[in-house]
Amino acid sequence: MLKRIQGATGAPRGFSSAGLATSIKTSGEKDLGLIYSSKPCIASAVFTQNKVKAAPVLLSKKRINNDIHGIIVNSGNANACTGEQGMKDAYRMTEMVEQHFELPKGSVLVCSTGIIGVNLPMNKVEYGINKICKNIFKPHQANDTYFSEAIMTTDKKKKEIAVKLRINNELIKIGASVKGSGMICPNMATMLGFITTDANISRKALDKALKMAVEDTFNSITVDGEMSTNDAVIMLANKSIEKPFIDVDTEEFKVFADTVHEICDILAKQIVKDGEGASKFITLKIKGASSKSDAKKIAHKIANSLLFKTACFGMDPNWGRILAAAGSALDTNFKPDKVDLWIGDIKVLTNGNPDPDYNEPEAAKYLKKKDIDFILDLKIGKFESTIYTTDISFEYVRINSAYKT
Amino acid sequence: MLKRIQGATGAPRGFSSAGLATSIKTSGEKDLGLIYSSKPCIASAVFTQNKVKAAPVLLSKKRINNDIHGIIVNSGNANACTGEQGMKDAYRMTEMVEQHFELPKGSVLVCSTGIIGVNLPMNKVEYGINKICKNIFKPHQANDTYFSEAIMTTDKKKKEIAVKLRINNELIKIGASVKGSGMICPNMATMLGFITTDANISRKALDKALKMAVEDTFNSITVDGEMSTNDAVIMLANKSIEKPFIDVDTEEFKVFADTVHEICDILAKQIVKDGEGASKFITLKIKGASSKSDAKKIAHKIANSLLFKTACFGMDPNWGRILAAAGSALDTNFKPDKVDLWIGDIKVLTNGNPDPDYNEPEAAKYLKKKDIDFILDLKIGKFESTIYTTDISFEYVRINSAYKT
Repeated sequence: MLKRIQGATGAPRGFSSAGLATSIKTSGEKDLGLIYSSKPCIASAVFTQNKVKAAPVLLSKKRINNDIHGIIVNSGNANACTGEQGMKDAYRMTEMVEQHFELPKGSVLVCSTGIIGVNLPMNKVEYGINKICKNIFKPHQANDTYFSEAIMTTDKKKKEIAVKLRINNELIKIGASVKGSGMICPNMATMLGFITTDANISRKALDKALKMAVEDTFNSITVDGEMSTNDAVIMLANKSIEKPFIDVDTEEFKVFADTVHEICDILAKQIVKDGEGASKFITLKIKGASSKSDAKKIAHKIANSLLFKTACFGMDPNWGRILAAAGSALDTNFKPDKVDLWIGDIKVLTNGNPDPDYNEPEAAKYLKKKDIDFILDLKIGKFESTIYTTDISFEYVRINSAYKT
Repeated sequence: MLKRIQGATGAPRGFSSAGLATSIKTSGEKDLGLIYSSKPCIASAVFTQNKVKAAPVLLSKKRINNDIHGIIVNSGNANACTGEQGMKDAYRMTEMVEQHFELPKGSVLVCSTGIIGVNLPMNKVEYGINKICKNIFKPHQANDTYFSEAIMTTDKKKKEIAVKLRINNELIKIGASVKGSGMICPNMATMLGFITTDANISRKALDKALKMAVEDTFNSITVDGEMSTNDAVIMLANKSIEKPFIDVDTEEFKVFADTVHEICDILAKQIVKDGEGASKFITLKIKGASSKSDAKKIAHKIANSLLFKTACFGMDPNWGRILAAAGSALDTNFKPDKVDLWIGDIKVLTNGNPDPDYNEPEAAKYLKKKDIDFILDLKIGKFESTIYTTDISFEYVRINSAYKT
């Protein structure tokens, strides 16, 4: 059971975060955020697997093993596909923060999200960075929620959390902010995530805790099957709380890692619920697969099927589309005449055939709910995978056909 | 240059085709079609790769090397995921035709398309089969267009063609009808295609001509990335014209195969243009790939990207989405900083950077056209692949959220 506390990435001791509007977004909304720790942090991260990586991803990736003091983030412009100028701009963003706080070179990371292929308006960005560095210690400006708002693009709600946990009677805090919305797909797609902690943890333990959490949370959600150029989930630990020292495969690690997992799970679900134009929150569980990888492949194939997604939007228990999508996951072990399927608690198929008790109007009624569950049991093995996804609505098409203009 | 003639699958000598309404569709539109040849035909086919194969696919696949006299086809119901009863119904459909014409057992093929998971209304189907077998020799009933209409589902237009060609001074005819619309994807998705010819051709040559044609046409189109349970393209040759005998790797074969290819290309483009809710016809060419398979993978990744498709619908030259989608085709050879991109004749990127002469308003203006072209040159090899696709519009969501109900 998580113990929630006030704030987000600025909640753990020694961290501050802030956000402001510097006119990268024409709407006048917040678009620049900073997380800062005067104590050096170890960092761990999971970045996009897309071969087209935005300049800030390339730069942050290179620095991830350095002692890190902060992360500068902008929304409204992804600084992706922006060539050499893009690399210079990403570098300049970090350099300004380093110079302001007199930090070692290479100790600040950078993330961007927004439109691809347009160079950053650096005059505005520089103006904003000057201001945010000054704000970060002002009581009314160092505001975690400002940071959470500053990283949003088409998100409708900010997504943040902070918790405290006790390990060996010592109080540790973890805070996090994420943004998601469209392009949410396995391997993270356009999402940014920032997690901070004041724990004293080994690099190996931090890496393991983050990777384990991301795999089943941010990497198990999909809105539209897209993988972005800018995804990053970055975790910083500044060791403000000296004891306990958390290393891998200890009791302390288990408690810590479970908490990180739970935080990521909550935020991942919030991302899906806030998916572009989503009218449904869909939980799809694949059971009885002959490997974890098969379970994941089939889950993603169904979750990204446009026909499945539009049927969910239409509240139509068109279970044939689920089977058809599952069957199109090539190179998987799947026997159509063995599967059982449930929509909520309603058994639809037994051994690939409509269950004798299946009642379609009842299933249609169930699908009118906002949160809907599907379970597909392949009945050939013991592996399973759960994925969270959304429907595809008119609103999705509206948002994405008009995103830029 | 194709020489078009009247008709479709009934145009080649010895073939007749017909279509009628037998109330499988509640709309009262045509939903049952028959192609018949009193002379036995050799057959070749390409079927769906989906592991969930509809009963008619399983049955027709088993019979493909038999002497074939006809194909019975219904729309409005896919007879897929229908268990044992579905297999019996598919078998019964062919048996009725065989009995009516006193044909050998196993000499009739069957195809179905429409809703998945509902058993066929066999009383209606049987009534219709009795009637269509009688109609097939009546002058006003044996109508190729009736057949083309009977195989349609959400298609807005019938898609048919017939041509004549001269080989060694002998006149050969080829006719074809296809249906497509939604779920059109690599490896054919929900499309049915029927091609007939009166040529005297070897089985090997027929197989080769069909497979070559399908690969670059029906397997190079995509509407929504879905692969159906019922896809089939079937070609019949009844050898009514004895000479020339067409075998593989001859001059005669080349002329014949080129014509089949051209026919399939025309029909494949018609399928895309009639894609569910399509407002754009998109031709996407990948050049300079290091293998044919890489070119295809990248082409499909872009063509099935929802963000690319919605940008096309919104007439937004959001080229970053093209690069991002290309980069997400894992296990391919792709260097973001080498690629050139054209939207129509407008050069957008040179070596991964916005071209100095690129003019966005000009590109936006170009995208207002109905037919739009993109060329992505990877500049790392000599392989290429072209794919035809559509945008995703409000109309697509409307059709597919309301398809069943």
